[in-house]
Amino acid sequence: MKHSFGSDNHSGVHPLIMEALVKANKDFTPAYGEDPYTGKVLKQIEKLLGGHCKALFVFNGTGANVVALSCFLESFHSILAPATAHINVDECGAPEKLSGAKIIPLEHTNGKVSPEQVRKGLTGFGFQHHSQPRILSISQPTELGTVYTPSQIRELADLMHSHGCYLHVDGSRIANAAASLQLPIKSFITDCGVDVLSFGGTKNGLLMGEAVVVFDRQMAKKLPYIRKQTTQLYSKNRFIAAQFEAYLKNDLYLDLAAHSNEMARYMESRLKRIPDITVSKPVESNAVFAILPDWLTAELQKKHYFYVWDEDSGEVRWMCSFNTRKEDIDEFIEDLEELLQKGK
Amino acid sequence: MKHSFGSDNHSGVHPLIMEALVKANKDFTPAYGEDPYTGKVLKQIEKLLGGHCKALFVFNGTGANVVALSCFLESFHSILAPATAHINVDECGAPEKLSGAKIIPLEHTNGKVSPEQVRKGLTGFGFQHHSQPRILSISQPTELGTVYTPSQIRELADLMHSHGCYLHVDGSRIANAAASLQLPIKSFITDCGVDVLSFGGTKNGLLMGEAVVVFDRQMAKKLPYIRKQTTQLYSKNRFIAAQFEAYLKNDLYLDLAAHSNEMARYMESRLKRIPDITVSKPVESNAVFAILPDWLTAELQKKHYFYVWDEDSGEVRWMCSFNTRKEDIDEFIEDLEELLQKGK
Amino acid sequence: MKHSFGSDNHSGVHPLIMEALVKANKDFTPAYGEDPYTGKVLKQIEKLLGGHCKALFVFNGTGANVVALSCFLESFHSILAPATAHINVDECGAPEKLSGAKIIPLEHTNGKVSPEQVRKGLTGFGFQHHSQPRILSISQPTELGTVYTPSQIRELADLMHSHGCYLHVDGSRIANAAASLQLPIKSFITDCGVDVLSFGGTKNGLLMGEAVVVFDRQMAKKLPYIRKQTTQLYSKNRFIAAQFEAYLKNDLYLDLAAHSNEMARYMESRLKRIPDITVSKPVESNAVFAILPDWLTAELQKKHYFYVWDEDSGEVRWMCSFNTRKEDIDEFIEDLEELLQKGK
Amino acid sequence: MKHSFGSDNHSGVHPLIMEALVKANKDFTPAYGEDPYTGKVLKQIEKLLGGHCKALFVFNGTGANVVALSCFLESFHSILAPATAHINVDECGAPEKLSGAKIIPLEHTNGKVSPEQVRKGLTGFGFQHHSQPRILSISQPTELGTVYTPSQIRELADLMHSHGCYLHVDGSRIANAAASLQLPIKSFITDCGVDVLSFGGTKNGLLMGEAVVVFDRQMAKKLPYIRKQTTQLYSKNRFIAAQFEAYLKNDLYLDLAAHSNEMARYMESRLKRIPDITVSKPVESNAVFAILPDWLTAELQKKHYFYVWDEDSGEVRWMCSFNTRKEDIDEFIEDLEELLQKGK
Repeated sequence: MKHSFGSDNHSGVHPLIMEALVKANKDFTPAYGEDPYTGKVLKQIEKLLGGHCKALFVFNGTGANVVALSCFLESFHSILAPATAHINVDECGAPEKLSGAKIIPLEHTNGKVSPEQVRKGLTGFGFQHHSQPRILSISQPTELGTVYTPSQIRELADLMHSHGCYLHVDGSRIANAAASLQLPIKSFITDCGVDVLSFGGTKNGLLMGEAVVVFDRQMAKKLPYIRKQTTQLYSKNRFIAAQFEAYLKNDLYLDLAAHSNEMARYMESRLKRIPDITVSKPVESNAVFAILPDWLTAELQKKHYFYVWDEDSGEVRWMCSFNTRKEDIDEFIEDLEELLQKGK
Repeated sequence: MKHSFGSDNHSGVHPLIMEALVKANKDFTPAYGEDPYTGKVLKQIEKLLGGHCKALFVFNGTGANVVALSCFLESFHSILAPATAHINVDECGAPEKLSGAKIIPLEHTNGKVSPEQVRKGLTGFGFQHHSQPRILSISQPTELGTVYTPSQIRELADLMHSHGCYLHVDGSRIANAAASLQLPIKSFITDCGVDVLSFGGTKNGLLMGEAVVVFDRQMAKKLPYIRKQTTQLYSKNRFIAAQFEAYLKNDLYLDLAAHSNEMARYMESRLKRIPDITVSKPVESNAVFAILPDWLTAELQKKHYFYVWDEDSGEVRWMCSFNTRKEDIDEFIEDLEELLQKGK
Repeated sequence: MKHSFGSDNHSGVHPLIMEALVKANKDFTPAYGEDPYTGKVLKQIEKLLGGHCKALFVFNGTGANVVALSCFLESFHSILAPATAHINVDECGAPEKLSGAKIIPLEHTNGKVSPEQVRKGLTGFGFQHHSQPRILSISQPTELGTVYTPSQIRELADLMHSHGCYLHVDGSRIANAAASLQLPIKSFITDCGVDVLSFGGTKNGLLMGEAVVVFDRQMAKKLPYIRKQTTQLYSKNRFIAAQFEAYLKNDLYLDLAAHSNEMARYMESRLKRIPDITVSKPVESNAVFAILPDWLTAELQKKHYFYVWDEDSGEVRWMCSFNTRKEDIDEFIEDLEELLQKGK
Repeated sequence: MKHSFGSDNHSGVHPLIMEALVKANKDFTPAYGEDPYTGKVLKQIEKLLGGHCKALFVFNGTGANVVALSCFLESFHSILAPATAHINVDECGAPEKLSGAKIIPLEHTNGKVSPEQVRKGLTGFGFQHHSQPRILSISQPTELGTVYTPSQIRELADLMHSHGCYLHVDGSRIANAAASLQLPIKSFITDCGVDVLSFGGTKNGLLMGEAVVVFDRQMAKKLPYIRKQTTQLYSKNRFIAAQFEAYLKNDLYLDLAAHSNEMARYMESRLKRIPDITVSKPVESNAVFAILPDWLTAELQKKHYFYVWDEDSGEVRWMCSFNTRKEDIDEFIEDLEELLQKGK
C-alpha cells in the first residue's frame, strides 16, 4: 500500500531509526534494561522532562498506559477519563483488568475535558460503596486530534491534586502536541504538574517502543515490577534505547511530528475549499475529521485507506504520518473532488 | 561486551533477521496484524506445525506464556508446572495475576517432570475448596537445558487429556529442542498432543517476537482478545512477521539453534577434561551448568559475564548463543584453567 | 431508631425467619452446603423457577451479582447495564475486579433500559480492541423502583440471545417485582428467557442470604468454584437454607413484599395531595422518590432517616420495608405537612 | 446428625449467641456498619487487642484472610505461607486472585514455620523478575492443631519486619490458641508485633462472622473499600456485632475454646491407651490427628463423621467443637475399640 490515512502506525519506521537499530546490533549486552545503553538514553528522557522523574521503556501504547496508571492505583480506585479515551474504548479492558480499577467515562468537548466536566466524576470520596476517584487520564493530543494548552493542563492537575488525586497524560502522540504548541514537552507536562506520562514513539516513526515517565519518586519504585508483571519487560532493551536516542537526537521527534501536523493542516486547507465537506473537529495535530456522505466514503475507500469514525454521523478520520507527502494529499483531494463531481 | 554467557538474549540480532526488518520497512500497511504479510507468515508457522492450529504473534516470552495459558484457564483453575518453570519463578507473578489461576509447583528431575510427578498435582477434582487442575506447563528445553523426548511429551499429554486437562509447552527455545532431537518441531509438539505452544524467537536471534500456537480451535477464538487485553498486541505487526519469515527461511532457526547447542556441547567437552569442575546437568541444548567454588566464580566473573544459578550449591549457568564462537569458549576455558592453576 | 426510610435493609429480620434460624440450630451437620437441609431448600427454589436450573446460596447481594455474572464472563467481555445499576455504582468495582470485564453504562428511562438503549452497547463484535459484549444486567425492580413487564424482559432476552449474549437479572428485591406484577417469579424470569438471576432475600426480611440461580447447565458447573473464589461460600449453609425455607413457606416472601409495596403506594397517595411535593418516579414497588426543597429535606432528616438521591436536583428516596407500618407513614406525612406550613 | 468430628463448623450456634441475635432484632438501624451497635463492639475488639488498631467485620474466614492480606499487598508481591496454610490449599485461589499476588509455599513442621524455613522464601528482593516477598501468613493454631508460643511469633514478626515485610495471623480459631496458651490474645498478637489478624468466630459457636484487625493505621484506611470490593460488606452488620458482643462477654469465646481444647486432649488421652493407634500430631488445640489402617477408617466412618486428612498415610482428623461432649468421645472410643477387637 503506497499510502494510508488509516493510522499513523501504518507508516513504518523512519530511516534514521532503522539505522540506529542496525548500529546497535553489535556485541553482547546484559538484558532487561541493565545494559549501559538503556540507562544512558533513559537519563536523556528524564533530562528532557526536567530531571526529577523516572523513565522506563515498554513495548507499546496500551502497555505504557497500563503500567503508568497501575503505579497509582489500588483496585478500589477509579480512573476518570473522557469517554473517547483510548484506555476506555480501544484497549479491550486492559487497564481495568490489570489494575482492577474502574474507568469513569466523562463528558468532553472534542476529546478534551474541562475542570467542570472532571468535577462530575470527583464524587463519593470516603463512601465505601464507591470506587474512589484517584487519577484523571487525558490524552495529549486527544484521540480527536485536539490539543490542551499548558494552562488547561495545569488547571486539571491542580484540580486533581486539590482532591489528593493525580494526573496521567497518554502521550502516544506527545511529539505532535509539542510541535503543535511549539513548546518543549516539559513545559506542558512537568511544569504543569502532570504525575505520570506515557511517552509515545511508535506512532511517530519508531519500530516499536514507548517510555513511561513517573514524576512521583514513591510510585516510581514500583515501576519495574509492574512493568514485568504487565508482560512489558523487553529482554533486548537496548534496541528500544537505540531508537529513542536517534528519535531525540537533533529533535527528530519534533521534526517528524511537525511534518505530520503540517500535512493535516494542509489537508484541512484543501478540504475547506470543497463546499460539500465539513471538517468536523479542530485540526490541531495530525488528525483530520470530516463528515462525508456514505456513498462518498465507500467510493473513496476503494482507492484510499482510512476508517469511518462514527457510523451514525458519517464522520471519518484521516491520519497523517511522518512520511505522508504533500503529493499523497493532493492525490487524495483530487480523487475526492472527482468523485464529488461524478456523484452529482 | 564482546561476549556473554549470561543469557542467549544478550546476543543481539542475527544479520539475516535485521536485513528482513530493513526490507519490510517500505510502504504503508494496516496495523495490528491485519496486513497481508502477517497473515502469510502466520500460515507458514501453522503449516510447520501441521496446519490444524492457529498462530498469532506477541512481543515476548512472558507475554506468549500468559496468552497461551489464559486461553485455557478460568480463575479457579490451577496450572501444574515444575518448580523451576519460568512461569513460576521468573515472570513476577504475571501468569497468576493475568489468569487469576494458581500455579502448583511440582517436583522435577533436572527441570523435567515425569507422569508420576505430575500425578501429585492432579488432585482435588470436584472439590470446591481447591483450585481445579487444568493445564500442565512444561518447558522444552527446560530451564535447566534438558530436553523431553517425544514419547515423554506424549505420555504427559495423554495423562493430562485423560483427566480432561491440557498440555502447554513453553518453547522460548523450541528451536534448540528441535536441533537437539534432530526432529521437526511438529513431531514432538503437534504429533504428541500438545494443546498450546509458546514458540520463541527472541532468544535465538530475533530482535523481538514470539508466536502463540493453539491447537484447540475453540480456545483459539479467544486468542486475539486475550492478546490485546494482555497488552501484547503490536501495532506494526509486519515487523515481527518479517523476522519470522527470515527465521523460518532455509531453516535458519534450526541452524542457529544447532550452532548454540554445539557450542554448549563443545564447552562441556572442554570442561570435562578439567578435574575440579563438575558439569551438574546433562547438556542437551545450549545451556551448561556446573558447580564451581565461590572464589573461582568471583574471579571468572571479572572477565566473563554469567550468572550464579544457585548460591547455596555454587552452581553457575553458561548459555551459548547463535553467535557464540568456538574462540569465545576457548578463551573462557583458558581463563578458567589459568585461574585454577593460580588458585592452587 | 423506631423506623427508617433509609433502606429496606435497615429493617431487621422477620420473626418467622428468626424462628426458623433458632429451629435450625440443633445437632451437627456437614458444612459448605453439603448438609441435606441445604440441598432440599435449593431444590425448592429450583422448582419455583421451573426446575431446569441450578441454585446456590451466597451471603449478600454484591456477592450474588458477582458470582452470577462471573459464570458467563471472560475478562475480555463487557457487561451492559443501565448507568444506575447497583453493579455499576454501588459495588466499589467488585464485578469488574472479580470478573476482569468492563461495565458499559447505558442510558435508561427511570432505571429501565429499552432494546434501543441496549443496542447502543451491542457494538464492536469481533473487533479485537474492544471488550466483547456478553451479558446485559438489569435490576427487577430497578434501583429507581420501576418494574419491567414480562414482555419487556422477554424482548431484552431475545435481543441479547440474537447476538449470542445473555441476560442477568439483579433481583435483590425480586419479590417486590413479583408482588407488583402479581405474577410468579417464574413467569417473568424463566419464561422470559433470563439466563441467570440474583434472587434476593436480605432486603425483604432475611438475616442474610441470597441465591444465585443459573439456567444454563454448562455455566452452572462453574458455580461452586466461582462462589468459593469470590469468598461467598458459607460454612454453616444450613442457616441460609432454613431462612429461605421459611421465606418461601406459604408465600411469606410475597406477603412481605406486597406489604412494603403497598406502603409505598400509600405514601405516594398521601404525597400527591401535597401541592409542593413532586413524586419524581413512578411508584411500582417499595421505593418512593420525590423532589424536595433543600431546607425541607434538612428539617425532615432531623426526625426521619432517609437519603438524598441526587444532590443537584434535590431528589430524595424513601424506602418502605416489610415492617413499615401505616402509622410510620402517617407520622412522616404529618411532620412533612407541618414543616411545609411553618416553612411558608 | 447427633455429633460430627468432621469440623468445628459442623457444630451450629451457641445458645447465648443465638439469644443475642434474637435480642438485636428490634427497631431499625442504618446498614453497612454505620449503626452505633457495630461501632461499639468493634471498639471492644480493638480494646481487647490493645487499642491501637482498627477492626471491621466480615462474613467468613476466607473473606477475612483475603481482606486482611490485601491491605498489605500489591499484585507484584508474594505471600509466604506454610504449604499447609488454609490460604494455600483451601480457598480455591481466592487470595491470589483477589490480591494478584503469589503464594510461596514454605516447608513447615507440623504446620508451624521456623525463622529458618521462612528465610528460604525471603529472596529476590529488588529483582524485577521475582514477585517481591511482602507478608508472612501463619495460622494460630495451625491447620494441624499446633500452637505457636508468643516468642515464636515475636521471632517471625521481627524477621519479617527486618526485611521491611509484615506478619499476618489467620486466627480462624484464635480463641483456641488463647485457651491453649492460657494467655490473652493481645499477648501473642499485638505484643508480638503481628500486623494484621483474622479474628475468627464461626468455628467457635457463632452463626457467622469474623473480624479483621489491622495494626497499621495507614493500611487500615483501605480496609472498608477492600472489604466492599471483596464482597464482604454485610448490610445488616448489627447482627455480627451482636454475636461478637455476646462472644466476648464474660469471656464466652475463651470458655468455648477451652472446652473444645479439653475435649481434644481427653480424646488424645483415650487414644494413647489404644496400642494400634498413633496420634500423629501434638494435640495443642481442638484437633486430633491419628494414623489408622484404611479398613478401620472405613468402618468408623459408617457411624462417625470425620475426614481423611492424607490418603497416602492414612492420617485422619478429628475436630472437637464447643458442643462436643465427653460422651461423644466415649462413644467414639468404644466404637473404635470394638472395631479393633473385631478386626483382629
